[in-house]
Amino acid sequence: MTSPIVAVVGGGQLARMMAPVATELGLTLRVLVESPDAAAALAAHQVVVGLPGDADAVAALLADPRPIALTWEHEHIPEAVFAAARDAGVPARPGLAALVFAQDKIAMRVRMNELGLPNPDWARADNADTISRFLEVHGGEGVLKTARGGYDGKGVRIISDASQAADWLARRDGGGPDVLIEQKVAFTRELAVLVARRPSGEVRTWPVVESIQREGVCSEVIAPAPHLDEALAARALGIGERVATELGVVGVLAVEMFEADGELVINELAMRPHNSGHWTMDGAVTGQFEQHLRAVADLPLGDTAPRAAWTVMANVLGGARADLPSALADVTDAGAKIHLYGKDVRPGRKVGHVNVSGDDATSIYDRAVAAAAIVREGVK
Amino acid sequence: MTSPIVAVVGGGQLARMMAPVATELGLTLRVLVESPDAAAALAAHQVVVGLPGDADAVAALLADPRPIALTWEHEHIPEAVFAAARDAGVPARPGLAALVFAQDKIAMRVRMNELGLPNPDWARADNADTISRFLEVHGGEGVLKTARGGYDGKGVRIISDASQAADWLARRDGGGPDVLIEQKVAFTRELAVLVARRPSGEVRTWPVVESIQREGVCSEVIAPAPHLDEALAARALGIGERVATELGVVGVLAVEMFEADGELVINELAMRPHNSGHWTMDGAVTGQFEQHLRAVADLPLGDTAPRAAWTVMANVLGGARADLPSALADVTDAGAKIHLYGKDVRPGRKVGHVNVSGDDATSIYDRAVAAAAIVREGVK
Repeated sequence: MTSPIVAVVGGGQLARMMAPVATELGLTLRVLVESPDAAAALAAHQVVVGLPGDADAVAALLADPRPIALTWEHEHIPEAVFAAARDAGVPARPGLAALVFAQDKIAMRVRMNELGLPNPDWARADNADTISRFLEVHGGEGVLKTARGGYDGKGVRIISDASQAADWLARRDGGGPDVLIEQKVAFTRELAVLVARRPSGEVRTWPVVESIQREGVCSEVIAPAPHLDEALAARALGIGERVATELGVVGVLAVEMFEADGELVINELAMRPHNSGHWTMDGAVTGQFEQHLRAVADLPLGDTAPRAAWTVMANVLGGARADLPSALADVTDAGAKIHLYGKDVRPGRKVGHVNVSGDDATSIYDRAVAAAAIVREGVK
Repeated sequence: MTSPIVAVVGGGQLARMMAPVATELGLTLRVLVESPDAAAALAAHQVVVGLPGDADAVAALLADPRPIALTWEHEHIPEAVFAAARDAGVPARPGLAALVFAQDKIAMRVRMNELGLPNPDWARADNADTISRFLEVHGGEGVLKTARGGYDGKGVRIISDASQAADWLARRDGGGPDVLIEQKVAFTRELAVLVARRPSGEVRTWPVVESIQREGVCSEVIAPAPHLDEALAARALGIGERVATELGVVGVLAVEMFEADGELVINELAMRPHNSGHWTMDGAVTGQFEQHLRAVADLPLGDTAPRAAWTVMANVLGGARADLPSALADVTDAGAKIHLYGKDVRPGRKVGHVNVSGDDATSIYDRAVAAAAIVREGVK
């Protein structure tokens, strides 16, 4: 049986979680992993060890039998990879023309402005003076970001004085990433819209979710976002669909937004399966990993309807328990769907998540958080 | 990250479908496959090529790092494998004391009689005379079976004359399997009960399903069985739990039954994930493959509640389409969950299945059958 190959750059949990659905669909997942013990290495069907900057590794990833598509589990993809894919005749999805807006926060803000989509106030942080002026106009506080290379709270810093930007500006002057400053939005909560788009233009969205962050890292996701005004939900979905379409995204796109005073402000874009979509693995007819593979392989997209009134996802961040699979014996909540990433535990590292679905949002929230705590820390 | 290993004998679709859930649970699936291109070989995490009768291959399956449990995807397991597992200190689940009742239909009938569970009339088919007498008493027809080695309608034959048993009796005399004859039950329909049991004795059942067979092979499964009398459903579940407990099964057990005149008659036992349980992969909170791994790894069992009012599973049997993954592009029903086994197509061979869930049994039945037909034959 010839099985179409989908190639993925990146060996973390997002690539790993594409493997089970690839198996079910009869697709072969070939991943480029940074090391043989990467999270995705054991799970994937074919493994190439190397970095995306290593031309030989990329050539092996694209070698015969040729993949039908090349995709990513993170945005840090050198341009040479796109060139190699083009030369090999393998479609890169999403392509660089789209991915650049997830790679570069300045490019993203410029494009959102052009599209009339709701940005916070922002400015290029060209120098200390620009920053000081921005802070003055915005109540003495702002969010400093590196345009490239950030994730999970890294590359983001709240500042009240231009001097706090000195190291990043110096690094920029030495060839590091550009810096921007954004208004610190006084938000009520964080929402996320997950969209999938295939090359033909077919677009599907899952319900808008609420994402709860702790110390800059996603902690829980509630699907759908509780008590969300219907018109605001429709607007959020519309923004997600518009971004996917206008930017020509192929695959899964996450648009993180702030809800503030009944308005929406775009926070971040991710063009790949995203933590805010892990709930779909158990809580929706089609999970984000299957949908991403369907989209990049140019297959009909699956139904995104929820399977239950509510699903709560709780991340497992590295804690006291080192031997995570031992947690399977301790979680006695029969409805807790446990997902482990096969990663070594480091404090705060995302090493798994738990989904719980049901009719009562409060009780399933408590159950998901409790199960994740048992996985992380053991039984108290 | 050390990942507990579960070892599986057999390389077909049942072993294959354990791999995705093993990945999600952070377990490592090591399979003994008959050939490198077996259905399970691409999907599994570790692969040993060989037959269960090959001592070296079995030794490799049990080698360090030692599996926490050894299980099966079919019943045709030589006794030497159990001895090797015992010597290696790896628990075989289910053990031989239980599995023998799925291996040997005479042993099973004897045991069901002992337990007072509902057998059809049956007899050992020792010779042509026994068979003739049995046929006389049972309206001139009976179901002849080989005690061992049958599956999917093989080793089963409806006869009306003892001469039709001559070849199997001769084979038995030459060392082949024993033969039995059973009453041909005038059933209304076929039901199946799926049970999981862990070593501690914890037992969980999924709802009773109706199984529709064509030419001796399962074609569709409707979950739950429509219009099933509540008392009869309770009795069916009770039989399933009693068999699991009395036989000391560990893992998933399927009890296939006939419904006839408001009564139940046991047809077959299978001690492994079973075709009648494929609907659980999308239609229940915990699918049978996850539950089987949980049971054999002695982990708390998962919730078996359905995720939808109805789920219909339609098998894809080998047909006109040779390149099965190409079917993914043709199935435009967004709610059809397609599972392909990575097997070469041969006429009538089980090569995949489709699940559809929803509120209306009739429409989802039609959708599942239609999607399976497209996978099998292409768009008409």
